[in-house]
Amino acid sequence: MATDRLSEIFAALADPTRRAILARLAESDATVNELAEPFSISLPAISRHLKVLEKAGLITRSRSAQWRSSSLRAEPLAEVAAWMDPYRQFWDENLDRLEAHLKQLQSQEGKSS
Amino acid sequence: MATDRLSEIFAALADPTRRAILARLAESDATVNELAEPFSISLPAISRHLKVLEKAGLITRSRSAQWRSSSLRAEPLAEVAAWMDPYRQFWDENLDRLEAHLKQLQSQEGKSS
Repeated sequence: MATDRLSEIFAALADPTRRAILARLAESDATVNELAEPFSISLPAISRHLKVLEKAGLITRSRSAQWRSSSLRAEPLAEVAAWMDPYRQFWDENLDRLEAHLKQLQSQEGKSS
Repeated sequence: MATDRLSEIFAALADPTRRAILARLAESDATVNELAEPFSISLPAISRHLKVLEKAGLITRSRSAQWRSSSLRAEPLAEVAAWMDPYRQFWDENLDRLEAHLKQLQSQEGKSS
């Protein structure tokens, strides 16, 4: 289904275990065993998640087979941030409206007290 | 598969047609017919995409059945941005390294010319 690059990145991020793996790798590189430890899922399942993350460019894996460790790559997240940038005005506007509303409430409270 | 909120948002964004629909709605609200126009896909297919976007909270749809129009809701994107925020340092660091490398190249060029 996900053939274009951005879709592949979003699909890779659409899983809580894969996001938890990224959060772990943000602290330091880790082997499959180290990554599997906090989760109640099998090593093969972790490996499948790592393959999805690697295909999306979100991690790289060292060549050494026995102690193969994974590292975070943040470039795809920068692509997501770039895609989101034009939409930023929409939630900024919402925050502005919320702030104006709160200020109005406060000024009304000030008058009534 | 996607049961948690953030996974549902990412899964909804993992499709180029759905992202194109959001981009169209960022300009103005639109009916299903207006949304279908630029795409070579059927109205029922557009409706299915709208359902996915609505379930993820990325759009709202008006009640009026005949001219039912969709509007963008940016709050889920703000949630994605909040999730990405801790990772920002990683691509900022990469940019810093790239900038330092370019400066070094320029200074070397300066010396050799």
